Amino acid sequence: MTARSTAATATRLAFLPESSLPPAVAWDGDGIRFLDQRALPFEIRVERARNADEIVAAIASLAVRGAPCIGVFGAYGIALLRRTVSDDNAFLAAAARVRAARPTAVNLAWAVDRVLASKDMLAEAEAIHREQEAVDAAIARHGAALMCDRARVITHCHTGGIATAGQGTALGIIIAAHRDGKQPTVFVNETRPLLQGARLTEFELRSAGVEAVLQVDSAAAVAMAREEIDLVLVGADRIARNGDTANKIGTYALAVLASHHGIPFYVAAPLSTFDARIETGADIPIEQRAPSEVTAFRTAPSAHPEARVFNPAFDVTPHHLVTAFVTERGILRPPYREAIDEVLRVSR
Amino acid sequence: MTARSTAATATRLAFLPESSLPPAVAWDGDGIRFLDQRALPFEIRVERARNADEIVAAIASLAVRGAPCIGVFGAYGIALLRRTVSDDNAFLAAAARVRAARPTAVNLAWAVDRVLASKDMLAEAEAIHREQEAVDAAIARHGAALMCDRARVITHCHTGGIATAGQGTALGIIIAAHRDGKQPTVFVNETRPLLQGARLTEFELRSAGVEAVLQVDSAAAVAMAREEIDLVLVGADRIARNGDTANKIGTYALAVLASHHGIPFYVAAPLSTFDARIETGADIPIEQRAPSEVTAFRTAPSAHPEARVFNPAFDVTPHHLVTAFVTERGILRPPYREAIDEVLRVSR
Repeated sequence: MTARSTAATATRLAFLPESSLPPAVAWDGDGIRFLDQRALPFEIRVERARNADEIVAAIASLAVRGAPCIGVFGAYGIALLRRTVSDDNAFLAAAARVRAARPTAVNLAWAVDRVLASKDMLAEAEAIHREQEAVDAAIARHGAALMCDRARVITHCHTGGIATAGQGTALGIIIAAHRDGKQPTVFVNETRPLLQGARLTEFELRSAGVEAVLQVDSAAAVAMAREEIDLVLVGADRIARNGDTANKIGTYALAVLASHHGIPFYVAAPLSTFDARIETGADIPIEQRAPSEVTAFRTAPSAHPEARVFNPAFDVTPHHLVTAFVTERGILRPPYREAIDEVLRVSR
Repeated sequence: MTARSTAATATRLAFLPESSLPPAVAWDGDGIRFLDQRALPFEIRVERARNADEIVAAIASLAVRGAPCIGVFGAYGIALLRRTVSDDNAFLAAAARVRAARPTAVNLAWAVDRVLASKDMLAEAEAIHREQEAVDAAIARHGAALMCDRARVITHCHTGGIATAGQGTALGIIIAAHRDGKQPTVFVNETRPLLQGARLTEFELRSAGVEAVLQVDSAAAVAMAREEIDLVLVGADRIARNGDTANKIGTYALAVLASHHGIPFYVAAPLSTFDARIETGADIPIEQRAPSEVTAFRTAPSAHPEARVFNPAFDVTPHHLVTAFVTERGILRPPYREAIDEVLRVSR
């Protein structure tokens, strides 16, 4: 359980109805309010960032996470710094620090650059935020076609509104189906090692009133064999030009299992996730993360601290295991090279 | 970290050399000493069970776990109860409670019934224990044929000596191969929810000097795709007459993934694990365990405590995904109905 004395507000353990869940990121006049994602679901903790140090710390510590969400937060951050730092050189130095707070998230640098190049920085940040919401809404709309009544869905990791500062990607589709009265049931993989499924997805689904069933990752195969699963729906971190998809570790196993059981496997992702410069998944670098993510379980050790560990953060699902992609421009089906080239050409 | 005041002895965090590890189960005159497997590898904690409540609690709480180990422990338990409960009806009622302490593993009921039917119950329990040691040794000998030099193996859950009160089944084969100079490398699935792989298998392999690499369960698919895995080797809790195999949750997923990658999938199990009265895996009872196993690990919460949870303790791997069984009578290959009938007929 995190315990930070700087919290502006903190509500102990609660499943708030979605309508009363604080927004992931919000401009409030002289600061940026954000939900501390590390504390969820044990605490609803809203913090404020008021200067460059606090903006950088929120991103670097993963209090604000999810690539689109970091982009929106960084955009507001630049607008805030422009208002509070009058010296131009000091402002540009601070903006550069925000831009570099997490080097791998492409959305952050993209959003910072876009705000810096604009005339009205706050208006530009707000535009980025509104556009993210529109992309998410379009993904949810296009994804509706995949969701039958009472669909039984397996999902992995976390793809909800908290991660996008909008309504989410894969989870956005599911929550939209729930609002349409389709009554989905979602089997949520806990998603070791960092438990984004257990902590964030289960929380966000319950907050929205969606029936959620938490399971260990390796129970997904049993759910497929015995629980009449209709589809698997996940997000993506990077998609190669041929459709090979990098996503949270565990996604590839889920895709193989779905194929074995004849269950459709869908990937929901904005077009910004497609990387046309990368031909196949073999060219996507796979980050190996710290052994301590596996040898401990939040605050509890789970193995000897000196255990040798294989801890790839992501895996690559070959395109032939993906039934379709859901983007803001509609659903892409094989052959993916042609479908991806076409949608990127039209959009850019 | 467990903290029970009844501990007879407790040694803090140590990787003991294998030779100095206390036995999993030992008769000591007026009680049964056992290694509390929940505390490993953080603490070497030896407890005693002296009555039916303590015997049932040790099994149900998983302080004593591993199908063959439960069988040996249950056998001593019946012998102890016969000595301490003079009233026949009370004794039979207590024995029935021990027999039903866990439903999926067949070894417990088998061992209890065998002791109950014997004239000298303690001698029978000791015979079961000695036979288990001999069975494990034979499994290790027969399994040697599967282990090439420098074999790269994936295993799941825990099948070492602690789990059998002998030298183990699947892990016994691997450790024997190590002693034969074959230098195996073992990718150890951590095995959520209770992390027997992270806590026990990694510990036991390191204690024996075997190269072990710990991974989250969902990383096994990536290891298969990228790490040149030669074979998967697991244990079993109950095997139906047609070869369908109940084992720790996650085994079925691993079998599907092995099949997808063309990797042989072996099950090491004593004949006491085969249940000829059960025709197929559909008839094997699958224990659903407490949601709290998934919503927390040890002292750390991982999800909201009220989360709805799907937590089958075991799954069933269909016989067609099993390349072969390793038993004390040799290696069984398909067609399994005939092979299993034959080996059980010869042995009984």
